[in-house]
Amino acid sequence: MDERTVACEDLYKGVKFDVRYDYLCIAGGMKSNTFNTPKVAELEGVVVFFLKHLYHARQIRNRIVECFERASNYTIPVVQRDRLLSFIVVGGGPTSCEFMSELHDFVTKDVVKWYPELAPHIKLTLVEAGPGILGSFDKALSEYYLEKLREMDIDVKLSTAVSAIEERYVDGEQITVAKFGDGTEQNFGVMVWSAGLSPVNFLEKSNLAMERGRVAVDNYLRVPNSKGRVFALGDCATTSESLPPTATVAEQSALYLADCFNNYHSKFDVLDKKNDNKDVPLPGDVTPYLMPWNALSFLNKLFCDSSPEFQYKNRGSMASMGFGGGVTDLKKSDLPGLKSTMSGQASYLVWSSTYLTKQLSLQNMILIPMYWFKALIFGRDISRF
Amino acid sequence: MDERTVACEDLYKGVKFDVRYDYLCIAGGMKSNTFNTPKVAELEGVVVFFLKHLYHARQIRNRIVECFERASNYTIPVVQRDRLLSFIVVGGGPTSCEFMSELHDFVTKDVVKWYPELAPHIKLTLVEAGPGILGSFDKALSEYYLEKLREMDIDVKLSTAVSAIEERYVDGEQITVAKFGDGTEQNFGVMVWSAGLSPVNFLEKSNLAMERGRVAVDNYLRVPNSKGRVFALGDCATTSESLPPTATVAEQSALYLADCFNNYHSKFDVLDKKNDNKDVPLPGDVTPYLMPWNALSFLNKLFCDSSPEFQYKNRGSMASMGFGGGVTDLKKSDLPGLKSTMSGQASYLVWSSTYLTKQLSLQNMILIPMYWFKALIFGRDISRF
Repeated sequence: MDERTVACEDLYKGVKFDVRYDYLCIAGGMKSNTFNTPKVAELEGVVVFFLKHLYHARQIRNRIVECFERASNYTIPVVQRDRLLSFIVVGGGPTSCEFMSELHDFVTKDVVKWYPELAPHIKLTLVEAGPGILGSFDKALSEYYLEKLREMDIDVKLSTAVSAIEERYVDGEQITVAKFGDGTEQNFGVMVWSAGLSPVNFLEKSNLAMERGRVAVDNYLRVPNSKGRVFALGDCATTSESLPPTATVAEQSALYLADCFNNYHSKFDVLDKKNDNKDVPLPGDVTPYLMPWNALSFLNKLFCDSSPEFQYKNRGSMASMGFGGGVTDLKKSDLPGLKSTMSGQASYLVWSSTYLTKQLSLQNMILIPMYWFKALIFGRDISRF
Repeated sequence: MDERTVACEDLYKGVKFDVRYDYLCIAGGMKSNTFNTPKVAELEGVVVFFLKHLYHARQIRNRIVECFERASNYTIPVVQRDRLLSFIVVGGGPTSCEFMSELHDFVTKDVVKWYPELAPHIKLTLVEAGPGILGSFDKALSEYYLEKLREMDIDVKLSTAVSAIEERYVDGEQITVAKFGDGTEQNFGVMVWSAGLSPVNFLEKSNLAMERGRVAVDNYLRVPNSKGRVFALGDCATTSESLPPTATVAEQSALYLADCFNNYHSKFDVLDKKNDNKDVPLPGDVTPYLMPWNALSFLNKLFCDSSPEFQYKNRGSMASMGFGGGVTDLKKSDLPGLKSTMSGQASYLVWSSTYLTKQLSLQNMILIPMYWFKALIFGRDISRF
């Protein structure tokens, strides 16, 4: 990245080309962290699946259907059938918990219609290395969610890490086995790995200063020593405040930077050769985006102090639980009103309405409830595609 | 297939197992026919795409987006850019014609919003070996459709076959070239091949009697010499009448067979060992399914003579043309009323309402118009997935 140039490589043919920049915003995200657990990277896409991209979701879906298809063959040995119907989710964060409750809904409400004889053999396991799930939530809520998962017959293993994955032959059948830190083992057909984040390749190989795997930026989201011309935001970046790697932070950072550019940086003539070695001046006051909806943005000025620096405003945390359940934590929220927590149907209502209004585009806001409606009325579709 | 057993092989692991049958219905469909054109099979999924399965549609979509992405790179040589933006459809049947008009809509209405600078370089070509498109339609309609395609600036080559595909290097750029029967050539980025049908592998390797690539069945849809226990229907089968390989034929055959089983074959005790060597008796009268909608099925008895044999009833043919256009041919239809033809918006209305009511399930009937609505209002989504 010398002389304000980004070296690019086309994904299709590996064509290399340079793009010059006046300003650069780095929003590269993060990738799943395998913690170098043996065989995880090797079996990724086969029996182990991350849950970051749309194609991951499709891989998981196709693999689950494959497991049921193979398990339903009358010639299959019991050991193979049982391991194919064993699903492990690694990680106890909101993604893992939401996925596990959806998976539970899917296998208990939908798949059993098509493979009723397999229902008694399905095993769901959730593994978390820390002492509890939903670590960032209020304790009462984590415990509520944990209890609900256990009521669903999900085997939740706390303070347990996956130490390795092994491929093994039992009676001539190839099976995959998860080995846990406590010495126990569990055969499985699908492992969904959502246990942590690590930097994407191009940032890992860059010479940018990193802070626990994330690009270190100052309180204006600027990369140091870039004369105010390089910014980083979203999951891939953090200030010294250690911002959580969530969509809310990414969205608020992007809105902050947009305001900086529109109101302040645009006044600096970056194309003027004479300015090449000058620092871009710091921005003036920017109002933080506390309110989740644009219609309420007039309240931002009322409840927050403007400042030239980026201020992250906590709007609370939520985790859904299938249809009609979940937890909402507003205790640490900067939103005005009660510092409360919610669980069950009230939380689901908050979750679904918030989820909806955050869907980027009107078309998604129309399509998503149609899908929910369809899933509720007709059940999920289990065809492979 | 000795002793009423089907040899199966699981698609995932190639596990082989047998399934015994009392009755067997073969509905294997057909696959795309490459006519052994050089390189077509080899480049299938890369630059040549069939259009039979859902995943084919996704492949085509992703490839089109790839072509635009690569063509929009400022470093790309002109010869490469132009060939990436050249789309060829092979075949002049309803599938090819509908696909070509949709493709035209897609590139002229949607893609150009994202790549306006590429619009002047897009080239659309349709190649048909016969003297006209939509060969099975009334001549006035084929000509109307042809004229409309040409008005859209689509290069329609009639009486022209693709004789080979070549990969070639021009100025160090790898390009793919279609060679036509008349000696001309056309570089291309995407070729959609929808030119004919050939038998699927398991039927080709079977020792069933075939008639032009399709399992020969008698007028009761029975495979000869099967003691009335093996049936074949849909695209993969034909009576001596040469049924067209369409969804209407497949649907009517399936409904006919269902009636045979429910009303007649169910009275024959196929499990009784004493019947093992007896022929299953022929069915009695079955009413043909002329009416496309169940609500009108009481009219079938009124307009058609019942018979023990399968009778295909022509309901007319349709081909849509993007939003709001198309052709409908009722001249050869067995439906009561005018033996008419339609084109333009009237035809589109008939096409879309018929298409909808044939969507198998209520959920598709709800989802499809929502998609149409979404595409009409918001444009198509061009993200890769």
